[in-house]
Order: sequence, then structure tokens, then C-alpha cells
Amino acid sequence: MASTPEQLHHDDMQHTLREVQALLARQKLEEEVVHRQEMKNHELVESLVHKQNVARLTGKLSTLHPADIAFILEALPLEDRLFVWELIRGDDSQINDGEVLLEVSDAVRESLIESMEPEELVAAAEQLDADELADLAPDLPKQVMDDVYLGLDAEEREQLRAAMSYEEDAVGSLMDFEMVSVREDVTLEVVMRYLRRFDELPDHTDQLFVIDREERLLGVLPLHRMLINDPESLVGDLMLTDMLCLHPGDKADDAAKAFERYDLVSAPVANRDRRLIGRLTVATVVDFIREQSESELLSQAGLKEEEDIFASVWDSVKNRWSWLAVNLVTAFIASRVIGAFEGSIERLVALAALMPIVAGIGGNSGNQTITMIVRAIAMGQVQDDMFKRLLRKELSVALLNGLAWGGLLGILAAALYHNMSLGLVMTLAMTLNLLLAALMGVCIPMVLMRLGRDPALGSSVMITACTDSGGFFIFLGLASHLLM
Amino acid sequence: MASTPEQLHHDDMQHTLREVQALLARQKLEEEVVHRQEMKNHELVESLVHKQNVARLTGKLSTLHPADIAFILEALPLEDRLFVWELIRGDDSQINDGEVLLEVSDAVRESLIESMEPEELVAAAEQLDADELADLAPDLPKQVMDDVYLGLDAEEREQLRAAMSYEEDAVGSLMDFEMVSVREDVTLEVVMRYLRRFDELPDHTDQLFVIDREERLLGVLPLHRMLINDPESLVGDLMLTDMLCLHPGDKADDAAKAFERYDLVSAPVANRDRRLIGRLTVATVVDFIREQSESELLSQAGLKEEEDIFASVWDSVKNRWSWLAVNLVTAFIASRVIGAFEGSIERLVALAALMPIVAGIGGNSGNQTITMIVRAIAMGQVQDDMFKRLLRKELSVALLNGLAWGGLLGILAAALYHNMSLGLVMTLAMTLNLLLAALMGVCIPMVLMRLGRDPALGSSVMITACTDSGGFFIFLGLASHLLM
Repeated sequence: MASTPEQLHHDDMQHTLREVQALLARQKLEEEVVHRQEMKNHELVESLVHKQNVARLTGKLSTLHPADIAFILEALPLEDRLFVWELIRGDDSQINDGEVLLEVSDAVRESLIESMEPEELVAAAEQLDADELADLAPDLPKQVMDDVYLGLDAEEREQLRAAMSYEEDAVGSLMDFEMVSVREDVTLEVVMRYLRRFDELPDHTDQLFVIDREERLLGVLPLHRMLINDPESLVGDLMLTDMLCLHPGDKADDAAKAFERYDLVSAPVANRDRRLIGRLTVATVVDFIREQSESELLSQAGLKEEEDIFASVWDSVKNRWSWLAVNLVTAFIASRVIGAFEGSIERLVALAALMPIVAGIGGNSGNQTITMIVRAIAMGQVQDDMFKRLLRKELSVALLNGLAWGGLLGILAAALYHNMSLGLVMTLAMTLNLLLAALMGVCIPMVLMRLGRDPALGSSVMITACTDSGGFFIFLGLASHLLM
Repeated sequence: MASTPEQLHHDDMQHTLREVQALLARQKLEEEVVHRQEMKNHELVESLVHKQNVARLTGKLSTLHPADIAFILEALPLEDRLFVWELIRGDDSQINDGEVLLEVSDAVRESLIESMEPEELVAAAEQLDADELADLAPDLPKQVMDDVYLGLDAEEREQLRAAMSYEEDAVGSLMDFEMVSVREDVTLEVVMRYLRRFDELPDHTDQLFVIDREERLLGVLPLHRMLINDPESLVGDLMLTDMLCLHPGDKADDAAKAFERYDLVSAPVANRDRRLIGRLTVATVVDFIREQSESELLSQAGLKEEEDIFASVWDSVKNRWSWLAVNLVTAFIASRVIGAFEGSIERLVALAALMPIVAGIGGNSGNQTITMIVRAIAMGQVQDDMFKRLLRKELSVALLNGLAWGGLLGILAAALYHNMSLGLVMTLAMTLNLLLAALMGVCIPMVLMRLGRDPALGSSVMITACTDSGGFFIFLGLASHLLM
């Protein structure tokens, strides 16, 4: 039986985390005892209990997969995290700290890198492949990257340069270089003999790439086909040619969707003259999809980046302030709209109590419309010529909702304030604001799309700004004209 | 060279969609001409141009992958969609319509199933595997499912029953039954001979499952290892035993995270006595992750389910009304809070203009806190005992933001209304409401977690309700006490 890092079940992982936390707590207790007995620090380090604890912790950690170590580091407060990180970097552990750095989240990676000496960083980075190094590079000090670069051979330098030259959301920045390629004019038998010379095939090798002498991609040979066919068959007879072939400049999002549609495990990446230059694997695609959906959720609340829950107060304030500033501006504009109608409010103070309902429901309804349309655009299902059709539908939905809920609210308002006309104004204002929300909910993402911008970014703030100021204006304006 | 359904690059797919749309448009033009010439309908069907169009469309469609056909169906309005769907079901196309039904979104699937006769549905369903059938079953009429069930053999019935007995978010409902298993006491040579008897290995077979006579899982044999090792080696010597083994009752979300951590392509699913009963593949996991993140984004806007952009107005109203109703209730409560202070507003009408700012910024800030904490809970990084630490941090962030932005607003308000005390009240109210937002932003998800509920569901409405009513109460209450 062969041995690899253990793959933990969810429950076992939670258990491991608690075990590490318990060992850390015991360690702290020990330090406190030592502190009370006024022992010197080196005596603590020498103490038997301390050594036992550290050995147990190191032992536990070295059985873990780098991704699980990353999980544990992320779940620990800064002080404990750095203590554990020091153990991991120690000589006793057999852990590849470069791999761990790759697996942790951006915020945690920053805290770990800050705690390391340049030489340590160079050593950790040297354990990585060119494509992994490219991912880590932006977080490393320039001096460290220069040192690492000097240690690379010509091919790796070329790969690193290539991987770093693409946009973050391009296939080129996600691809790796670990592809196994074969010629079309050999038999499966020959391929099998060639493969037996490997100690290990690269992860996610579900197919071999078939290339000609100029390294141009001719097709792919799935491992399946190798296994179920006669060893005497020729690669060229068994290879598939209808496979997806990506270009390094393709959008990662489009590539991810192709992986989903065709249930791919890997896909070749070739440049414009069909020269094979790398491959994309489903593991990278899964990480990309997860990161993309995380950042979409975070950006909806105006959080710029994933914020480590143990981040300092100051880092959190920096992460959040710009969103609050934007909202403050829109809220202030809405407030000035109200200010313009202060005379009406003074005469009929009920307006002050009712106006936030009109604005709020408009915002909710507009966000529903915009969410639907942004989704449909992202799925590639919206073309320019659908504008009218979508607008007609959303306006109809808004009209129905406006009459129903606005009608109900109108009755409530009329009953509460014994004022029929106030109820009518309420119903009318609700309906008009929902229509405004539908109009803007269709226009904002469609216009952003035509301008070539990401329709998901900022459209929620814009619609809320419209329905707030618009709602106050419509309601107070109607009331001023019809009731005063 | 072998032939499989073509895998289209993103640009080619958009191109194909436009091609289909152009053919459909031409078809409609033709119908209109016929209509004007008052030909009868059967003459239209007989007309040469019509036949050519249909043949071209069918030809185009039959080269496509079922997932691409699904994409095209989703991007077409109902009428065109059903026209294309009829062509697909026709005898001329070689398309597996069961597969297409599996690939389309829920809303579109409903529209397609409604257009089909029971016999057609039975025929389509019979093309599917037991696990696929289980996915489709909830959407099929009972009579159809009964007929399909009668056509299954004993093993398939048992598999269907098993797949349908698990919760929607359990591994059991996502697994399939297409695993290839071998014994540990045979050589690779024997395994290879066994595999050559297959016409095709199941998709995503990256490893074989090693079982004993009682079908208990002993380990896994990656195809890699088979290829790089001596054919005389024994399976038992090469298999891995440290692999992840899932249980059918495990949460799909935890399983998906394990796939991400360990970069898996497939994983065995075994019951409590380690009997192998199925496997989970990365393709299913990718679909699950995508659906989960879609539904999270939709639920943030209170959309119950994915709404097809061509859905009828009435379906859209139904999908959206409950969220508007909930928000109406919370907005109404907030309105009554304002109502309680109408006397103060009458005396100082500036309060009406300023109060929405306090409530709005509180809501934004609270949503930031809750988004951070819900994310961290979902990642498994929050334990019960972290409550105090998180609260302390969030309150500090809120205090800083409150003093900074509240201070700025206070100065603005004081300048606008020439009223120093009003500015002070503004600053104080902003700070207090941000502190309230931080308190509730930590408490709501933590309490939901302790109650065993999903902290993502509804927490955004709750926090907005708190910061709206709370913001109005704090600001107007302070103003009434300090300014009147």
C-alpha cells in the first residue's frame, strides 16, 4: 500500500482543528505557569512539557495535507497562527511551506509572509512550479522574487514570464505547464512504455496531448481510450480532434463555463498558431469559480476583498470605508431631495413617516430586477436586441406589484391618518417608484454591458440611489401638488 | 480519428446561437409571407423553403453537445424554444432529449416538459441512468414516473430508490453508480485485460475502486499508477488507502469543500459498514458549487428560484412577491417608529431630511459585518467561543467608522441648518446606530448558527429591519430629548 498525505473527512477536520487548538491552549497555560515561577524564557523552551507539546503539535501537523494546514492557519488568531507557522517552517516538519502559502487566503498569506525572513521566502518559493510561483509573485517582496528568478532555468523563466504576462482573469494566468505530450505515429504500447519511465504523472492527467514536430496540437488521447484499446493501435487512430482548445487570452470565466458544459478534467491551451503551451485543469477551474462567487457576494456588501475575521480593526476599517463613503453621498443627495419639500412635511407630518416605505420597497424591487438581468447577462443569454422585451416584462411586473402593494399601503395610510387623498398619493407614488425601479433595473446593467463594463459591479448602489432619491421626490412631489 | 459531440469555444457558441436565431427569424418571415398569401398551414409545411430551413436547423442542432442545446433553448423566447424543442424530439435528429432535459435550468425544463406527451417523456426518461432519473423525477408527472419505473431492472430500481431517498443537499442525492471496481489480489495485467472488455469507461474514471468479496471498500487505484507501474504488480500493493471516503448522508457542501481541498476528480461513497455504493465526481461538484452560489446571490435579492428571463409576468410576480411582502412589514414598522415622533418632526422639520441617512448607513454597515461573519461560518472558521472576540472587533470598527462619518455628517448638518446641537445629535446617532449594526451583525448569524439554521438565510432582512427602526428611534429619540 502506498502512502500520501491523508485526505480528511469534514468531521475529522473539525476534530483536528480542535485538537490543535487544545494543544495551543495547553502550551499557553504552560507559559503562564513558567511566567509565574519567574523562569527565564530559555528555561521554558528547555522545559520537558514544552518540548512534548511542541513535538505532539508538529507530529500532528506533518500528517496533514497542505490544504488542511492552510485551513487551520486561517481558523487561528494571529498570535497562534504565527506560532504554528514557525513550527511548520522548522526542520522537524516535512511540510512544504510553499504549498501552504499557495493554499491560504490572500489576507492570511500576507500575515504569514510578513513574519518570514527573505531567505526563508526564497527557500519556500523555490519548491514551487512556475505557474504556482506566478500566483505567489505579487505578494512577495521584489528582492525575494529577483533571487528566486536567478535560481530558475531558462524554460522555467520563460514559463514564469508567460504566466505573469496575462491578465488575472485570463486563461493564461490560470494554466499550468505540466502536460504530457506524445506523437501521433506511435502505438499505445510505445506510449505505455514511455509513461512507465515517469515516477508520477502530473495531477489531473486524464488525457495526453498529441502534437507534431512543431509542437502544434493535433488532438488529445484520453487515458480511458488507452486502457480499453488494443496496445497495437496507433495514437493517431484513437485520438479525439473535436476537443475544446483554449487560447491563453481567453476569459477565464468563459473557459470555466466550457468546463461545466462539457464536464472536462483538463483542456489544452494553445497559442494562435496552435502551438501547445499549457493546460488548464478542473482543480484550477473549481478554485476560480469559488473565488469568483465569493468576491461577487462580498462586493454586494461593498467589501473590497476577503477579510480575514482576525484582521486588525484598522485593516477592517480600510476594507469597508469606501463603500460607506459612496453610500453616504447617495444618502446625502436623497436627504437634500427631502429638504426641498420641508414646507410640505411641516404642513402634513404624516409624509415624513410614510416616505421611507416608498423609497425602501422601490429599492428592494429594483434590486430584484437588476439581479435577474445581471445573472442572465453573465450566462450569455441577453443580446442587445432584447432590451424592449425585457423592459416590457419588468414594467408589467412592477405595475402589478405596485398596484397590489401600493393599494394595500394606501388603504393602511388612509385608515391610519383618516385621509383618503393621502392614501391615494401613497398608492400612486408606490406604483410610480416601482416603475422607475424596473426601468433603471433594466437600463443600468444593459448600458454597462454595452459600455463593455461588468454589469455586476456597482449596479446595486446605482439602483438604490435612484429609487431612494426618486422615491422621495415622487412621493413628496405628488403630495405637494395634490394635497397642499 | 474518433468522433464525439463537438466542444465549442465560447465565441463559437455565441456564433451558433446567432445562427440558430437567424434561421428561426427566416422561418418566421417565411410563415408571414405564406400567411399573407393565404396559403393553408399544411402548404407551408410542405413548402420547399420551409423544409430547407428546418433541415438546416436540425442539421446544425444535431452536431451540438446536449449542454450547448440546453444553452440555446435557455436563450430563446418560449415560442421559438418550443419550435426548436419539437425539432430536437423529431426522428431526424439523433439528439438524446433526456440529456438535454437534464442540462437545462429548472424553469426552462418545466416549460419543455409541459409541451411533451406522456409517452415522449417516458421515452426520454428511459435513456437516462438511475441517478440522472432521480434528478429529473420531481419534475415529471407521477404517471410517467410509474411507467418508467416498470421498465427498470431490479438493480436500477434499487439505485433509483436509494438516490431519491436522500435530502437534496446530501451526497447521496448527487452520487452516481458508474464505478469500476476490482479485487486487490490481481495483477495490473489482469485489470488491463478486464478494462479492454469495456466499450467505454464511465466519465471521470480517474481511479478504480478496490473492494473485497463483501463489496467493502479497501482502497483506490488511480489510473496513473496503473500506467506507470509494472504490469506484474498486484493491485493491493499499489492502491491508496488514505483516500477520502464519503457517506451518502454527508452534506454535499462539506464534500464539495473536500474536492476543492484535495483537488479530487472522483471519490467513493460507502455506507456505514464501508460497502461501496456509489461515487461522486467533480462534474457534479462543479454544478453543485455553481447552483449554490447562484441561489445565494438570488436569495440576497429575495428571489426564490432562478427565474427564466422569458418567464411570464405572472410567474415573475409570484417569484418576487413574498420578499416584497416581508420588506413591506419591516418598512411599515419603521414607519410607525417615525410616527411616534411626529411631534418632534413638526417642531424641527430638518429631522425628517436627516433621519434616512442615519438608518441607511447603519444598514450598509450592518450588512458588511453580517456578510463577513456568514462567510467565515460557511468556511468552518467560527467556533462558539469566538463570540466575544468577534463582537469586540466589530464594535471597534463601528466606533471608528461612526465617529469618522458621523462626525463629518454632523458638521454638514450643523452647517446646513445653522444648528450646532443638531450636528451633535447627528454624530451621536450615527455612532450609536453603527454600534447597533455591529452588535446585531454579529449576534444574528451566531444565534442562527447555534440554532442549527443556515445563517445566510434572511439575516440581511433582519439586520436592515434592526438598523432602520433602530436608526429612526435613536436619532428621533435623541433629538426629542436633547433638542426640544
